[in-house]
Amino acid sequence: MIIILKKTAKQEEINELTKRLTDKGVIVSPVIGETMTILGLVGDTSKVSMDSIQQHHIVERVLKVQEPYKKANRKFHPDDTVVEIDGQRIGNGYFGVIAGPCSVEGEEQIISIAQRAKAAGANFLRGGAFKPRTSPYSFQGLELEGLRLLKLAKEATGLPIVTELMSTKFVDEFEADVDLIQIGARNMQNFDLLKEVGKTKTPVLLKRGLSATYEEWLMSAEYIMSEGNENVILCERGIRTFETETRNTLDIQAVPVIQKLSHLPIIIDPSHAGGSAYLVPSMSKSAVMSGANGLMVEIHHDPENAWSDGQQCLNPNEFDELMAVVKQLIAIEGKHLDAVK
Amino acid sequence: MIIILKKTAKQEEINELTKRLTDKGVIVSPVIGETMTILGLVGDTSKVSMDSIQQHHIVERVLKVQEPYKKANRKFHPDDTVVEIDGQRIGNGYFGVIAGPCSVEGEEQIISIAQRAKAAGANFLRGGAFKPRTSPYSFQGLELEGLRLLKLAKEATGLPIVTELMSTKFVDEFEADVDLIQIGARNMQNFDLLKEVGKTKTPVLLKRGLSATYEEWLMSAEYIMSEGNENVILCERGIRTFETETRNTLDIQAVPVIQKLSHLPIIIDPSHAGGSAYLVPSMSKSAVMSGANGLMVEIHHDPENAWSDGQQCLNPNEFDELMAVVKQLIAIEGKHLDAVK
Amino acid sequence: MIIILKKTAKQEEINELTKRLTDKGVIVSPVIGETMTILGLVGDTSKVSMDSIQQHHIVERVLKVQEPYKKANRKFHPDDTVVEIDGQRIGNGYFGVIAGPCSVEGEEQIISIAQRAKAAGANFLRGGAFKPRTSPYSFQGLELEGLRLLKLAKEATGLPIVTELMSTKFVDEFEADVDLIQIGARNMQNFDLLKEVGKTKTPVLLKRGLSATYEEWLMSAEYIMSEGNENVILCERGIRTFETETRNTLDIQAVPVIQKLSHLPIIIDPSHAGGSAYLVPSMSKSAVMSGANGLMVEIHHDPENAWSDGQQCLNPNEFDELMAVVKQLIAIEGKHLDAVK
Amino acid sequence: MIIILKKTAKQEEINELTKRLTDKGVIVSPVIGETMTILGLVGDTSKVSMDSIQQHHIVERVLKVQEPYKKANRKFHPDDTVVEIDGQRIGNGYFGVIAGPCSVEGEEQIISIAQRAKAAGANFLRGGAFKPRTSPYSFQGLELEGLRLLKLAKEATGLPIVTELMSTKFVDEFEADVDLIQIGARNMQNFDLLKEVGKTKTPVLLKRGLSATYEEWLMSAEYIMSEGNENVILCERGIRTFETETRNTLDIQAVPVIQKLSHLPIIIDPSHAGGSAYLVPSMSKSAVMSGANGLMVEIHHDPENAWSDGQQCLNPNEFDELMAVVKQLIAIEGKHLDAVK
Repeated sequence: MIIILKKTAKQEEINELTKRLTDKGVIVSPVIGETMTILGLVGDTSKVSMDSIQQHHIVERVLKVQEPYKKANRKFHPDDTVVEIDGQRIGNGYFGVIAGPCSVEGEEQIISIAQRAKAAGANFLRGGAFKPRTSPYSFQGLELEGLRLLKLAKEATGLPIVTELMSTKFVDEFEADVDLIQIGARNMQNFDLLKEVGKTKTPVLLKRGLSATYEEWLMSAEYIMSEGNENVILCERGIRTFETETRNTLDIQAVPVIQKLSHLPIIIDPSHAGGSAYLVPSMSKSAVMSGANGLMVEIHHDPENAWSDGQQCLNPNEFDELMAVVKQLIAIEGKHLDAVK
Repeated sequence: MIIILKKTAKQEEINELTKRLTDKGVIVSPVIGETMTILGLVGDTSKVSMDSIQQHHIVERVLKVQEPYKKANRKFHPDDTVVEIDGQRIGNGYFGVIAGPCSVEGEEQIISIAQRAKAAGANFLRGGAFKPRTSPYSFQGLELEGLRLLKLAKEATGLPIVTELMSTKFVDEFEADVDLIQIGARNMQNFDLLKEVGKTKTPVLLKRGLSATYEEWLMSAEYIMSEGNENVILCERGIRTFETETRNTLDIQAVPVIQKLSHLPIIIDPSHAGGSAYLVPSMSKSAVMSGANGLMVEIHHDPENAWSDGQQCLNPNEFDELMAVVKQLIAIEGKHLDAVK
Repeated sequence: MIIILKKTAKQEEINELTKRLTDKGVIVSPVIGETMTILGLVGDTSKVSMDSIQQHHIVERVLKVQEPYKKANRKFHPDDTVVEIDGQRIGNGYFGVIAGPCSVEGEEQIISIAQRAKAAGANFLRGGAFKPRTSPYSFQGLELEGLRLLKLAKEATGLPIVTELMSTKFVDEFEADVDLIQIGARNMQNFDLLKEVGKTKTPVLLKRGLSATYEEWLMSAEYIMSEGNENVILCERGIRTFETETRNTLDIQAVPVIQKLSHLPIIIDPSHAGGSAYLVPSMSKSAVMSGANGLMVEIHHDPENAWSDGQQCLNPNEFDELMAVVKQLIAIEGKHLDAVK
Repeated sequence: MIIILKKTAKQEEINELTKRLTDKGVIVSPVIGETMTILGLVGDTSKVSMDSIQQHHIVERVLKVQEPYKKANRKFHPDDTVVEIDGQRIGNGYFGVIAGPCSVEGEEQIISIAQRAKAAGANFLRGGAFKPRTSPYSFQGLELEGLRLLKLAKEATGLPIVTELMSTKFVDEFEADVDLIQIGARNMQNFDLLKEVGKTKTPVLLKRGLSATYEEWLMSAEYIMSEGNENVILCERGIRTFETETRNTLDIQAVPVIQKLSHLPIIIDPSHAGGSAYLVPSMSKSAVMSGANGLMVEIHHDPENAWSDGQQCLNPNEFDELMAVVKQLIAIEGKHLDAVK
């Protein structure tokens, strides 16, 4: 941390502030120049509040030089994390493909889609049981019945289950039945929920909030990891910008940036990012070549009649076509897509 | 709802789509022109999913013409709502001033600040007991002990208590002890939490999410109201933009826009919007003249040593000065600020 | 400027970088700590490129501590600038009210609106002669004929003229006939145009770009001032955000922030910010209480038939009503609104 | 265009509005429902101003159903445009690679970089002669001398020249010497400049403004095309968001969206988007797989000592490596990268 002092700061005031800081265990190195005086803070600055120092009457500005995340930080964990999810792996050289419908709608629907997803090469099944809907009047998901149907689809195909948890009330059910617990964009800073999944051992797929910075996103991962669960996979799913032609703007730069800042795997959800099926193939291919560790794609056997988000679903044939190219690109990137037996 | 059809749509396809829509109970009026064909939908369109229609192969675009919120909508409730909170009122001609520290830090602190807040003319006491912090390593609030101290401050001053609820686990305690339950910006779309406070009878202060549109914000109010609790007050606290000099950008236009769209009261939090104490006086005065129904201001007896957010707190003397002008402006606006006895 | 070095930096590399910097005339003070090494740069750092240093292989990060604007910077010019415009003043205690139609449409129109503007208390007349339109097929303004009509309106009322310059081709005509040259939001970083108006002696009204930061805006003022013309007034007119219910989001915090960073006057344009007439009265009142040095309001005798932007114009009667309150608030703020004789 | 009327609209008022509209040559089809009345407008609506209708007292809302761009619109020009630039082609199956330094710095520099660019497979040379800099105190480019040096580099390599035009004053020089005139992001809505390059026959590379919507961007292309120059290539170079870790956010979805809306070629500039060299390889590869028609990459023989933007330049060896993969991906996409002889 670096503290720029006001020009009017007197020596005794500087001494007083310095003492206050060294009392908190940091080492303070002053830089005294003609046009500015700086205090450089080294050592463990975690107990020093930037806000509080900013408020001090001789302080002009406080600048942060270290990232506030520790467990998610690549600096302290140089090797890529590989997350194991019921036998499948995501991270480093292992690419994951998660596919399935927006909502679980019924037994036949979810099983048949799971079979097509698997046949095309996906190694995870997604399907919404609890749905975060902007409107209280919209379909809210089949809830626990949806979870039961996902398990049937897993029995039929062997694909591990990815589904969203919205409430701390159902943590136990999810820990028992779900292979990769999704925390949705709207709950990225639902700290209560983050802490609870942090106490489980189940891998967590943490979606980026609609207007979350990279640092906030990693701090949310830190919430989960600081409770003991270090199996976190990040998912970029589009951010909110001024553009209205697409639902959100896919921030593809998130992939190389996050991989520089953190050791955690990062995957791309092109379906929610753009909100339109026609964008999914090109964005999926871009995602692989950006270096992402996986993809999450919405597919539906009959998009026109999907209960939610049909406009962004590929049908199984379109998904087959896409996967043919995706596999080729994964190979160019030197990564592996494990098949589920 | 309005459906623009593709030029290539054939009459039999139009008939098929029309039937599908009328089966859902809406009236479909076609407009057939040389360059476009439109289906105008009137009647109850709530069962028709825009997403699903958008997906139909003969549909070019779907346009929404009605707001999706009902209970929060001024069209169906033309008169301003006045919310009663333990004898105080906010809404229409009643202006509310909520003041207090970011965090409850101790008995003496909260009581002395409450006394100064009341003396300056505030009619509500705020104070954080549960704190939503970006970092898991930051101070998370005194939690239930904080709630106990707020009650002592209320006993001492009579000021109703406003404090944030972050978890469904503590809904009962909040319903028992808190006069106005705050839902923070990060939880604006924590639908689980919204439903739970919607089941209580306690008035709710719903902060706008960092990148929430007006419509999403009103839909979150709708979540609360649709469960039976119609005592909702909205709070604008700054939105996220590209600007980094201020913490957030205060969207002051929210006041007249929300008052046009909805009958619910709307107040302004200038402390969190700008994130700096020097911005609070001018923004508070602007807020009153924008037509807002209240203000929420952070004050602290010793901002330099506040446990959180000290940089944006006014000290009690600064608050006294501000309130002198604020009262004058409330009178110009023809509103009342009730004193707490 | 502060340079954070990588942990791997060797002493000889640090010496080499230090020499390179001192050769450019700055004083380099190293701070050597256990976990980081910092170089603090003091003196004239204007010749040192942040970009270039950032690129150096031993550099972790470069942090700027001084504002890049000099002439616009309050630090080097503590007193408020008061700009004189043909006998009227804007800045410090002098409040300016600029009113008039979006487009000059004809002689009778502009003269009659100017008379109503003056009668209500405005001390400047605005009117677009050259119009920046998103579409090449939209009305582009009466151009030089519009300028001629504005002069007639000035003869009739004495109100100084404010109008937008879009091209370097017409700088001479504007210098001769216009009292306050407006540079529009879209041209805020048209550096060629900024330099040309910087060479004139005519005061300049510099609108903020749609997504310009405060610093970029002040740097654009600096472009004008560095050419010799220090009579710059800033105008906040709304920024682009994700919200679509309003045309733009009025950033009212710009007023206190700019007044802290700079000595230049700042005014508010509520008409373009919100894009709707119903927002103008509350936002105008907010603007006065934010501490702004003036207002720019679009008015039209027949908004329904205006050639452009009718939806955001007040009619003269609405403007009369608004000005009655605005004058009261200007007095509360301790400012003066000079009448034009 | 679709006009939603207020419920309170009377038949005679509807008749009056209808007449006003039909007088402008459009066909008006009313849809009268229980809860709303709609006027559907078909035919040539270009003379009807949405703003003006929005203002009408019986109008609730006006919805646009047709794009305002004509010449840039794929609907009226279904086939992809291929732009020819001094023998090279960009568009449809032809991929263009533009490489070179941010600024032209000297003869040896620009020639040697041009030779390395060509050797790696680039078929265009970029280099800034006129530089749009945020600060008036920063290096502004070698100006016409820079143009002369670019011509020498073209003589040496045969690579067509791409460079930015900032002022209408130099249109003639650019028309004579430049093969592809770049209009920078900051000038995307400098309509005066757009019209002037529209009058030339030289192909134009139109960068997207920092916060421009797709529609505004295409409308700026329309400005150029409506003057007669239809050789426009669009360039996505990052948009401004709340994220500060990267300079801008690359909007890779722009590629499929623009290709759906328009027939014009679109290329990606990964250097300015992220502002860091480490992001360029992954983003370049993503760009090819997004379906883009080309790339514009900054390279420099000695990035640490570049006069501007060194932090985002690849060195020639890094560019060689990148081009090896890029060529492979261009082939997978079924496109051609022509070599310059």
